[in-house]
Amino acid sequence: MDLLREQVWQANMDLQKHDLVTFTWGNVSGIDRESGLVVIKPSGVAYEDLSPANMVVVDLCGQRIEGELNPSSDTETHLELYRVFPQIGGIVHTHSMNATSWAQAGKPIPPLGTTHADYFYGHVPCTRSLTDAEIQQDYELNTGKVIVETIGQQEPLAIPGIIVKEHGPFSWGKTPDQAVHNAVVLETVAAMALKTLQINADVHAINQTLLDKHYLRKHGKNAYYGQQEHNEK
Amino acid sequence: MDLLREQVWQANMDLQKHDLVTFTWGNVSGIDRESGLVVIKPSGVAYEDLSPANMVVVDLCGQRIEGELNPSSDTETHLELYRVFPQIGGIVHTHSMNATSWAQAGKPIPPLGTTHADYFYGHVPCTRSLTDAEIQQDYELNTGKVIVETIGQQEPLAIPGIIVKEHGPFSWGKTPDQAVHNAVVLETVAAMALKTLQINADVHAINQTLLDKHYLRKHGKNAYYGQQEHNEK
Amino acid sequence: MDLLREQVWQANMDLQKHDLVTFTWGNVSGIDRESGLVVIKPSGVAYEDLSPANMVVVDLCGQRIEGELNPSSDTETHLELYRVFPQIGGIVHTHSMNATSWAQAGKPIPPLGTTHADYFYGHVPCTRSLTDAEIQQDYELNTGKVIVETIGQQEPLAIPGIIVKEHGPFSWGKTPDQAVHNAVVLETVAAMALKTLQINADVHAINQTLLDKHYLRKHGKNAYYGQQEHNEK
Amino acid sequence: MDLLREQVWQANMDLQKHDLVTFTWGNVSGIDRESGLVVIKPSGVAYEDLSPANMVVVDLCGQRIEGELNPSSDTETHLELYRVFPQIGGIVHTHSMNATSWAQAGKPIPPLGTTHADYFYGHVPCTRSLTDAEIQQDYELNTGKVIVETIGQQEPLAIPGIIVKEHGPFSWGKTPDQAVHNAVVLETVAAMALKTLQINADVHAINQTLLDKHYLRKHGKNAYYGQQEHNEK
Repeated sequence: MDLLREQVWQANMDLQKHDLVTFTWGNVSGIDRESGLVVIKPSGVAYEDLSPANMVVVDLCGQRIEGELNPSSDTETHLELYRVFPQIGGIVHTHSMNATSWAQAGKPIPPLGTTHADYFYGHVPCTRSLTDAEIQQDYELNTGKVIVETIGQQEPLAIPGIIVKEHGPFSWGKTPDQAVHNAVVLETVAAMALKTLQINADVHAINQTLLDKHYLRKHGKNAYYGQQEHNEK
Repeated sequence: MDLLREQVWQANMDLQKHDLVTFTWGNVSGIDRESGLVVIKPSGVAYEDLSPANMVVVDLCGQRIEGELNPSSDTETHLELYRVFPQIGGIVHTHSMNATSWAQAGKPIPPLGTTHADYFYGHVPCTRSLTDAEIQQDYELNTGKVIVETIGQQEPLAIPGIIVKEHGPFSWGKTPDQAVHNAVVLETVAAMALKTLQINADVHAINQTLLDKHYLRKHGKNAYYGQQEHNEK
Repeated sequence: MDLLREQVWQANMDLQKHDLVTFTWGNVSGIDRESGLVVIKPSGVAYEDLSPANMVVVDLCGQRIEGELNPSSDTETHLELYRVFPQIGGIVHTHSMNATSWAQAGKPIPPLGTTHADYFYGHVPCTRSLTDAEIQQDYELNTGKVIVETIGQQEPLAIPGIIVKEHGPFSWGKTPDQAVHNAVVLETVAAMALKTLQINADVHAINQTLLDKHYLRKHGKNAYYGQQEHNEK
Repeated sequence: MDLLREQVWQANMDLQKHDLVTFTWGNVSGIDRESGLVVIKPSGVAYEDLSPANMVVVDLCGQRIEGELNPSSDTETHLELYRVFPQIGGIVHTHSMNATSWAQAGKPIPPLGTTHADYFYGHVPCTRSLTDAEIQQDYELNTGKVIVETIGQQEPLAIPGIIVKEHGPFSWGKTPDQAVHNAVVLETVAAMALKTLQINADVHAINQTLLDKHYLRKHGKNAYYGQQEHNEK
């Protein structure tokens, strides 16, 4: 648990390094699949006051197991994703500028080039709006549920992020560090997609062949990007 | 008074840290409600030359009580807000890039997502233009009056900022530090709102249910964001 | 001359501090009106290699008086402005992002708010294109002449900058330091004006009353911005 | 070879300094024309782990001659350019924000001002899309071939960069350092061109006379920009 605390703390600090957060508007969690315990950032604590020791540990039902602080108010969203997607090990939520603007615009981000295709095997999806009932009761849990609904039958590690309509981006990965990596990619492709559309409003998604080439160049059994030990990264 | 001088100086310095000011284009004040004295940045002094000692103290009528320097040229605007809104304890004025662009465009900033709803319980209002007479005589006082007119019956702490048409943003809070915090939020939501409209020109304000959920999650008696002692922050 | 060398060197270094230059794409000069000598940055030398000692001194006819390096390739533009406008003491040229984009767009920057009005008493003008003949022979001198032609009967210190069509901004002031200050203002109002038009394409210049109020609040005999000794700054 | 390793390593590090890369999304190579050996960044290695010693050496056929790491996955693109253009000595590939957005938009970048004309003697061309067959087999080699096809009869040192449709920019120069320099220019003119079009959608390329003036002021036998020893730079 100490290692995961350290990893989750480091991943939270990296959000700042990558300019993805203002104040406390972001959180990272990680899960230990053996014990089923989740380490997550405490709610509303300034980044300079975070440490591995004040990360909060909860179980998959949301019971606080270790720590004195309240866990992130988005904890129930994280837990829903961990329960439904056993292949993910870390989750990030931010209000990063460009991804949040796409979320506010309520539009999925189309794959317009190879930067996108290197990490996302298709559109970054955008959820539907929550109903009034979903907002009023169990809002954070329902946010998780609408993410799951939107991912549907897609492989979550092939679409390692989403934008929640009127809210902002969530991303994930096999580890907290990879979830942060994918949050940076999501923010970058969001910024590029807006600029691309400003240059050429008629542009459309790249074709499947180029998407396959780039995604599979970095992922899967025939990947040849990077050094052997990094192929899956 | 020494504590307030320190707080107001620190809040002024924080404007720089948050990239809200160019040169001397910003000022923060704070009020001690018991004595009715206001501490404010001196006019046109470079940030590196500011210190708690050279902050200026004025009373609510604008008489200089302590300090050798002239107070900010916007002092009369601050004082009007303190006189009318007894619940506020700190005020910030900047020419931050995106909020000022909305002010120049003469448009209120609609609540397009939860980043906005976490802090502003509705549109960030935009004042009307001042009349020629209001500009020529008591300009800074009239700037305060048009802010008060625009806020109208709304609770100023629920709408902790405004954009003055053709000029720029003012924000406030219970303390100078919270006023700076709200200035950062205002600049951020202004930037996001522009990008959102560039992605989807047909977007409109989020519904009341989501606005309630996010605003009340952070504010008021049932707030559950953050740690207990931060709930009101 | 040593003081002016130091001031011009410092002003050149400040272009970097204010993020106005890429590589060597900017230059500042200053004039000593008594001797009629101009100190200017050498051409194409990296900022880290500049020193007060390697600034170049030329007379108003462009003869190199001191220094071993070639003066900036834009020297003839600077000299023309010094010859025609005796009230200016420093000149800056940059390719700063937003002002250059307005220059490439070939449009004057309208005064859309008080940030602009605090420094520019009207539009930032945009020159006409040079003719083929003006480009082919004495290009840099003709660049100065078209600036002078565009300023026309306006007071250059009340319009302390211009954008040269298809090229970029020039600014000036009583001293090299004030010319840099105005270059920062010009870049800032250029960025704000673009964003303003993106929010509201129908916006137009502020009225004369507000322009008068803000410009004259900072400049002229009844100025009341800043501390007494700074009024003219 | 040690000198070239050092130069290529330094040039790779400079991509970071100039904010052209996110994570490992960029690579620089250099060639020693005497031996025909190319030094290139290893694939997928973090910038902080790069050193002159772990740069990879390959021959013009792509055989690894020195180094234990896999060369950049874009190596075949670099090699094709070195084989066809004997006048170039360094190549850069990045996914820099603005140039990549133009690539995704599938549009050449028109010369809209002198910033562009100082370095690129005409449009920054944009390649056609690759065919499905070109993507599926020898993708990186075919990327090089489509660059060569697009440059056509133009002098590559007069058009020292290109944008590959749906992918991103490549640039080159006589040395790795100059290739990085041109990558910075390409990113800058890409950003300016977008802003220019946002201010004035009807703008068009500058005329040939101005293009000649600026390009030839910095390049060729009558260049007069910079100091004598820098004229070709």
